[in-house]
Amino acid sequence: MNKKKGLLIVVSAPSGCGKGTILEAAMKRKEFCYSVSATTRSPRPGETDGVNYFFLDRERFEEMARNGEMLEYAEFVGNLYGTPRAPVEEKLAEGRDVILEIEVQGAMKVKKACPDAVLIFILPPSVDVLRQRLCKRKTESEEVIEERVAQAGREIGEAVNYDYAIVNDDLEKAVEDFLGVIQAEKLTVKRQKDTIDNIINEKQ
Amino acid sequence: MNKKKGLLIVVSAPSGCGKGTILEAAMKRKEFCYSVSATTRSPRPGETDGVNYFFLDRERFEEMARNGEMLEYAEFVGNLYGTPRAPVEEKLAEGRDVILEIEVQGAMKVKKACPDAVLIFILPPSVDVLRQRLCKRKTESEEVIEERVAQAGREIGEAVNYDYAIVNDDLEKAVEDFLGVIQAEKLTVKRQKDTIDNIINEKQ
Repeated sequence: MNKKKGLLIVVSAPSGCGKGTILEAAMKRKEFCYSVSATTRSPRPGETDGVNYFFLDRERFEEMARNGEMLEYAEFVGNLYGTPRAPVEEKLAEGRDVILEIEVQGAMKVKKACPDAVLIFILPPSVDVLRQRLCKRKTESEEVIEERVAQAGREIGEAVNYDYAIVNDDLEKAVEDFLGVIQAEKLTVKRQKDTIDNIINEKQ
Repeated sequence: MNKKKGLLIVVSAPSGCGKGTILEAAMKRKEFCYSVSATTRSPRPGETDGVNYFFLDRERFEEMARNGEMLEYAEFVGNLYGTPRAPVEEKLAEGRDVILEIEVQGAMKVKKACPDAVLIFILPPSVDVLRQRLCKRKTESEEVIEERVAQAGREIGEAVNYDYAIVNDDLEKAVEDFLGVIQAEKLTVKRQKDTIDNIINEKQ
């Protein structure tokens, strides 16, 4: 029997929705791999190649993009950022579940490149709660917060293109929901054709 | 905000797969309604109309079938059996989840009549384990058991037309899987369009 492929899990959320906290808590209860992004920006002190990022020069990055070796990529303030395909596919082939934390446009590109991926969007209970959470941090000016809230509103509209939406109202509930989605996705018939075939043909 | 519709859950399994045990255990942890079937057969002693079955005469049953008031129906040894649509839809509208225990042909008809239904197939770990379980009951002859095993083999082939397949190897795990599927289905974006709209439009 072939090793069962891992699940590629794409997670997006507007800033302030608690995505990082949910994933951290979920990883304490289940093993996931994180995808390491590639970038053309220079390493910062303390950053390690292959751990924080794969640090590439622009020529190599663009060559990989041209060859379809990036699941998605985009340019931000003069630097390229992307998701190299090979390490993700290696981990999936080993049967490990891989999490991609990525913004909306990137997520749509990954869905196209990997139709088997599961796309999860984390929602705030309301835009107003999101505003309050951002204000509580006291790290940004009112203007920046309003810009972030407006951005969140636009991003939430994209949630309809995802497979699942999880409202982060209660952290424990959100973590349960996240793990429930992973569990259920593995039980879908489309991911269990081999299991069904093996039962019919008595190959266990 | 409109009341969220309940989930219509169709569950099928070959005889001996432990479907009843799984559902019984699941109902101790979560509230579900059972759909009551209609039949033209006579009530047996102790059976109550509207509880065990809706007992109908053939004329009334056939009229309901003609009017599309049965989600599915079929004839077995001279009697009609079916699932009346109205009670199921009432419960769903109240936000209650409804379980339909039904065989493969009926399940396919329900899927057509209610594309929102979730179809779950319970599998034995292997056909051989199923044979052992049926033998252990010591209620059927070897011949009957072999006919049931052959029938199970044919039914398992239909699992590919379901949404989810749960292998009943370990009861506790199968119950967890069943509840995980229900939880995840409610988190699908297609079932949460109102939630997403409400967050965007600040209507909580």
